[in-house]
Amino acid sequence: MLGLMQDWPLLAHTVIDHAARSHGDREVISRSVEGPIHRTTYREVRRRSLQLAKRLQADGVQMGDRVATMAWNTWRHFESWYGIMGIGAIYHTLNPRLFPEQIAWIMNDAEDRLLFVDLTFVPLMESIAAKVPSLKKVVILTDDAHMPETSLPGAVSYETYLGEADDDFEWLKFDENTAAGMCYTSGTTGDPKGVLYSHRSNVLHGLTTVQPDMLNVRASDRLMPVVPLFHANGWSTAFAVPLVGATMVFPGPAMDGKSIYELLTSERVTITAAVPTVWLMLLQHMEANGGSLPDLSHVVIGGSACPPAMIRTFQEKYDVNVMHAWGMTEMSPVGTVCSLKPEYAELEGDARIAVQSKQGHAPYMVEIKITDDDNEEMPWDGKTFGRLKVRGPTIARAYYKERGADQFDDDGWFDTGDVAHMDRYGYMQITDRSKDVIKSGGEWISSIDIENLAVGHPDVAEAAVIGIAHPKWSERPLLIVVRKEGTTPTKEDVLGFLDGKIAKWWTPDDVVFVEEIPHTATGKIQKVALREQFADYAFPTA
Amino acid sequence: MLGLMQDWPLLAHTVIDHAARSHGDREVISRSVEGPIHRTTYREVRRRSLQLAKRLQADGVQMGDRVATMAWNTWRHFESWYGIMGIGAIYHTLNPRLFPEQIAWIMNDAEDRLLFVDLTFVPLMESIAAKVPSLKKVVILTDDAHMPETSLPGAVSYETYLGEADDDFEWLKFDENTAAGMCYTSGTTGDPKGVLYSHRSNVLHGLTTVQPDMLNVRASDRLMPVVPLFHANGWSTAFAVPLVGATMVFPGPAMDGKSIYELLTSERVTITAAVPTVWLMLLQHMEANGGSLPDLSHVVIGGSACPPAMIRTFQEKYDVNVMHAWGMTEMSPVGTVCSLKPEYAELEGDARIAVQSKQGHAPYMVEIKITDDDNEEMPWDGKTFGRLKVRGPTIARAYYKERGADQFDDDGWFDTGDVAHMDRYGYMQITDRSKDVIKSGGEWISSIDIENLAVGHPDVAEAAVIGIAHPKWSERPLLIVVRKEGTTPTKEDVLGFLDGKIAKWWTPDDVVFVEEIPHTATGKIQKVALREQFADYAFPTA
Repeated sequence: MLGLMQDWPLLAHTVIDHAARSHGDREVISRSVEGPIHRTTYREVRRRSLQLAKRLQADGVQMGDRVATMAWNTWRHFESWYGIMGIGAIYHTLNPRLFPEQIAWIMNDAEDRLLFVDLTFVPLMESIAAKVPSLKKVVILTDDAHMPETSLPGAVSYETYLGEADDDFEWLKFDENTAAGMCYTSGTTGDPKGVLYSHRSNVLHGLTTVQPDMLNVRASDRLMPVVPLFHANGWSTAFAVPLVGATMVFPGPAMDGKSIYELLTSERVTITAAVPTVWLMLLQHMEANGGSLPDLSHVVIGGSACPPAMIRTFQEKYDVNVMHAWGMTEMSPVGTVCSLKPEYAELEGDARIAVQSKQGHAPYMVEIKITDDDNEEMPWDGKTFGRLKVRGPTIARAYYKERGADQFDDDGWFDTGDVAHMDRYGYMQITDRSKDVIKSGGEWISSIDIENLAVGHPDVAEAAVIGIAHPKWSERPLLIVVRKEGTTPTKEDVLGFLDGKIAKWWTPDDVVFVEEIPHTATGKIQKVALREQFADYAFPTA
Repeated sequence: MLGLMQDWPLLAHTVIDHAARSHGDREVISRSVEGPIHRTTYREVRRRSLQLAKRLQADGVQMGDRVATMAWNTWRHFESWYGIMGIGAIYHTLNPRLFPEQIAWIMNDAEDRLLFVDLTFVPLMESIAAKVPSLKKVVILTDDAHMPETSLPGAVSYETYLGEADDDFEWLKFDENTAAGMCYTSGTTGDPKGVLYSHRSNVLHGLTTVQPDMLNVRASDRLMPVVPLFHANGWSTAFAVPLVGATMVFPGPAMDGKSIYELLTSERVTITAAVPTVWLMLLQHMEANGGSLPDLSHVVIGGSACPPAMIRTFQEKYDVNVMHAWGMTEMSPVGTVCSLKPEYAELEGDARIAVQSKQGHAPYMVEIKITDDDNEEMPWDGKTFGRLKVRGPTIARAYYKERGADQFDDDGWFDTGDVAHMDRYGYMQITDRSKDVIKSGGEWISSIDIENLAVGHPDVAEAAVIGIAHPKWSERPLLIVVRKEGTTPTKEDVLGFLDGKIAKWWTPDDVVFVEEIPHTATGKIQKVALREQFADYAFPTA
């Protein structure tokens, strides 16, 4: 027997309807790409989104069409998402930090029809557009006064484009499983793979992330997503923030420490979210120039592991609570947040920081487990690590064009490619990537743990650990080190430094010194390239 | 194009899976019907729910079968919901406060197969069971040591029943729109009507109610639902509380002020929810015996309008924040909660209490509007009132057996039967029931507003206002008063007391004094009966 509840599909644009109706005067504040601070409201954002939807429809944009955006976090980018989704088309965020050839590859794979682009990226897109035959029109996110000379096809300013339609429009209605958004993962190997969010997953994820133990957002909050909308679905802030009617503060293109500090204080931001690099710049700015963060309640830190020292500085020096978080493009993206359950709530000092250095626990709707290579579940003892697998309604079941099928199993579990341990209260800590973990005599060694320790040596600038084939142990760790300029640490110095900090059998069999370690466009160590470089390496003892 | 997110249906029993896995040691504490405090955990609740599901299946209970419960809030009642839902059957909560013939009518309408009943209600059910031929077995929510002699068919203790199965069982998987629960409305007129919740609506509603601006629940909270699970889906607490892994504190059968106070303090409850009557008893107990509520953060008050004096006492005397709320059985049930948006956050004293006396604002997924009799939407100006209509995925689209079709319109709006005004920030205040509002010369007069003022007169024990036909104005208000014992207020006294407190044209055309005003089983004024009683009444001036 079916329940008798209303058939009210979870369509993402109903979020902006709610914000406009119930929190209509609430501000959406942006540092504009042109420079000045821009202020609007949810009512106005919705009105213009409707206008955009109507304009897109007049352009022949259909359900399922991909509309690319390459833009900073501003009200115009935010509006464009809702306008695009509201007619069943798909916002496709492009990451400007990728190599131009990668961007062209991605746009061709997605067959983007239109592009919304910020002034900043016009030169970049001019170098790419000719390689993307599907691209018919480029809307530049500015007004006519700021329009540049450009070779981009069909270039028009956003304000002019918008002005060609009125707001007398109703959102289309359709199945909640309709695609709403798209974001490509920038893997360290192989071609990028597209993740296709649905209206349902965006709504459910927005609802999930506002919970008190997650981002903890209410109408009286003022939330600044420094994390770009083009990074992993913008951590869902474009849905979560209007869903509760909180004030939105968009930082635009200015991500340096000074600009972020200015906006945090002038707009009395209460919650903010970004990767550790951004916070490092903020803390360095404050260290050099002084300042305080009296309005800021908590800062969400994810994208890569947050150093314990950063947690300590925020909490002890600035009285700002840190919420360490972990997620993936494939997960909409938030997977875990490190809020404190009652078992940990009373901890203080180092013990508290140690827990907060974990990536946290999963909310309802994110199922999580760790397994060995045979898919046997590993215990939650805070030590044993295994492949991290996740399942839930806001997690991908496949990549665009059904790529990467081997990452999804028959029971619906997605293999994150991370290796992690879980403690008895469900707190997860990532210890490595599964392809980087070193399998020595049937046991696993975390390359990242050794790297993190090695860079603690005063003369080590950067460190990487890879597994090298070994006749007896299958694999053993090799430590690759870039020395700090003007220093000459030896193998014995470095291994001596590790001694006592890791298990004996984790100790690298050798240390080699190099001038440089290869990185990806987004700054990750390219272990694949390293493994190629050391393909012929053999341990002195083997 | 469809999104590529996992097909993970929102099944209500996945909530207890999450609680058991991620918050497994968290306690579920109950005052038992037998007397002592009982302590268990989410892990154990889930284990026993699985056992129950297996046992029910062995009894031939099928998807869609109705299993009735007549029980206080305890761990056993809580377990039974999950066990029943987990095989696609339907928990059907019975309200023991209804008249026995109403209960029998409801059980026959629902065709309940099994009944889970508390010791308290065994005598009541013995008087009813013979009239319900579909009822094959009665499980008494106790152990063998406490089993009474009873004539109930197939009577067995819950613990024995449970012990007849083990916990080696997996929940069934099915469509998220499958019916999960059932609750009949106790209307003031006509037969009761069944509301059929789905798994999807229970999950979505649980997620909605935990938000910071709603019940604001996190894992470190200790929440006591005093509101019974049999009242309007237990205000969704059976889903919301395990969903975030908060400690559950069930009050069992002891709802008096002293018992509630003891549990609030001994179990360090941080959030609690009930109707005003319960809080009146608590406050009277504390007034007489002293005491404080140092752990209690906020109290949710709904079911009927919360008097401003109660809000003031909780906040000013006991430092407990009041969240006034409104909902309906048809709405899963929460419709609005009165948390303070930034526009009101700075208010103090009387101005704050005035806002908190409104029923509050609707969360995302509860659409709300007020209309006139022609379905024209009325402005949100805080004065104009109209019929209150709602729409959303956790709101009924029909009653069981498609009854009451006239309350649902073609656009999916449900007419609540209430009359309310909305202010510009979306705060709703109920002013009357639509069938009780008095329509005078095309304008509406709130019967409840006049009643609330009239009972402020020191000699008035109770007051009711009904509309009486009037040749010129269509209807005019008649005020019906029960005098306090030993007093003899006159018509002029009472009308003089109202003078200046309401608009001139709201002043009742007459006052009549009666010995008694008729009430329903649940204590509401029976206006239908009053209108019959005064059918032949004519105003002296008309």
